[in-house]
Amino acid sequence: MVFRYFIILAYKGTPFCGWQFQPNGPTVQGELERALEMLLRNPARLIGAGRTDAGVHALYYVAHFDALRDDLHTDASIIEKLNGILPREIVVSRIIIVPPSSHARFNAVSRTYHYRIATKKNPFTIDWAYHFYRPLDVEKMNEAAAILLEYKDFTSFSKLHSDAKTNLCDIFHAQWYDNHDGELRFEITANRFLRNMVRAIVGTLIDVGLGKYPPADIREIILEKNRGAAGTSAPPQGLYLVKIDYPGMLF
Amino acid sequence: MVFRYFIILAYKGTPFCGWQFQPNGPTVQGELERALEMLLRNPARLIGAGRTDAGVHALYYVAHFDALRDDLHTDASIIEKLNGILPREIVVSRIIIVPPSSHARFNAVSRTYHYRIATKKNPFTIDWAYHFYRPLDVEKMNEAAAILLEYKDFTSFSKLHSDAKTNLCDIFHAQWYDNHDGELRFEITANRFLRNMVRAIVGTLIDVGLGKYPPADIREIILEKNRGAAGTSAPPQGLYLVKIDYPGMLF
Repeated sequence: MVFRYFIILAYKGTPFCGWQFQPNGPTVQGELERALEMLLRNPARLIGAGRTDAGVHALYYVAHFDALRDDLHTDASIIEKLNGILPREIVVSRIIIVPPSSHARFNAVSRTYHYRIATKKNPFTIDWAYHFYRPLDVEKMNEAAAILLEYKDFTSFSKLHSDAKTNLCDIFHAQWYDNHDGELRFEITANRFLRNMVRAIVGTLIDVGLGKYPPADIREIILEKNRGAAGTSAPPQGLYLVKIDYPGMLF
Repeated sequence: MVFRYFIILAYKGTPFCGWQFQPNGPTVQGELERALEMLLRNPARLIGAGRTDAGVHALYYVAHFDALRDDLHTDASIIEKLNGILPREIVVSRIIIVPPSSHARFNAVSRTYHYRIATKKNPFTIDWAYHFYRPLDVEKMNEAAAILLEYKDFTSFSKLHSDAKTNLCDIFHAQWYDNHDGELRFEITANRFLRNMVRAIVGTLIDVGLGKYPPADIREIILEKNRGAAGTSAPPQGLYLVKIDYPGMLF
């Protein structure tokens, strides 16, 4: 008999080739599977809530795995030991036992990402924000962001040759906030995101903020269903996965 | 005729061999002098408020320099250009014209340092705090810190073979704060600090917090006037210079 667990973690994306395991570089999934195997003395296979690209951070990430033991969630020393094995850029905060049919990816009903832009020089956010000092018209960027909510097909903001079966997403919220002290933050929530989608959207909204084209052009970009129509992707160090929602799960 | 300026800056210490110029590695003073020379087309020589060791951060640092022009403080584009030349770990925030007798080091009446300890794993403060997970008795550390204020001679916390003429310091404030969310912060203000002094004090107070010796032993350590009596230095990534006070100067 096996028991299913959700594991909640956070990571600094800088040293990793993203969430998903790959043979030729360190990944969060790879490090976590290795740590679980060391601890449980059983092969562990993790299913994550979604992929994050190389260099992207997660303040909150959820994955599930199965284990032969039914007590992992009751033993606080498990988390301590895992964190001792894991590299310092990954921290596990909780392990929760869940019904065997629970799925970290399929049960998630929404994901929230933040994107930080440093608008003035700041030595203390070098790894933590996209440093971009040209003036941006935040009001126009928000006009363009609001248009995103009217559409479903985001092929124009999706990585080419992605293996996704559909490019339809429900965006619930998309807005820029200016702290008026050198930082802009973009918050976006959707039921799902295509690969590279947030960074492609941010790069395109930056073009709007620079005045390269008016906010209304976002409509045409979306309708073209062609990645070439949108702007270049914003760099990964500004992007954070901050929230994943599961219905009826209170954690 | 030359004009004297104070320059206010901040830096991330990680990539630098400290403030003070040295031929065999990047220093904050070296980078700043090079940037000023490029901009002013005159050799620039900076006098800093004090040295910071390799890897130590400054949220607020003051230095003075002389220039042939009397308008550097009136031209905002100067700061912008300087920041464009300087590496991304150094940011200049202000340039102020001062009377020719002003001195960034001799006129400073106090310096304040903070030292951050992460008491639980946190991928987001790797470069920004000393990660130390063994339990510390903060109350005892504060008892020991209070004793520091009764003494003047801090030879026991000073780097050997320092070129300082005297080892006397007036400590005005020394206290630990626990945010009860995985971070301890030590704040210390004195008229002056000896080389390596804050880190040696922090290392010794950590020993007290671990129970290696009782707080009262700090008296004997101080009175021995021997660096060997105190604990090892805490690492540089937790240390920040945060404030330098000049009498009658409102900036």
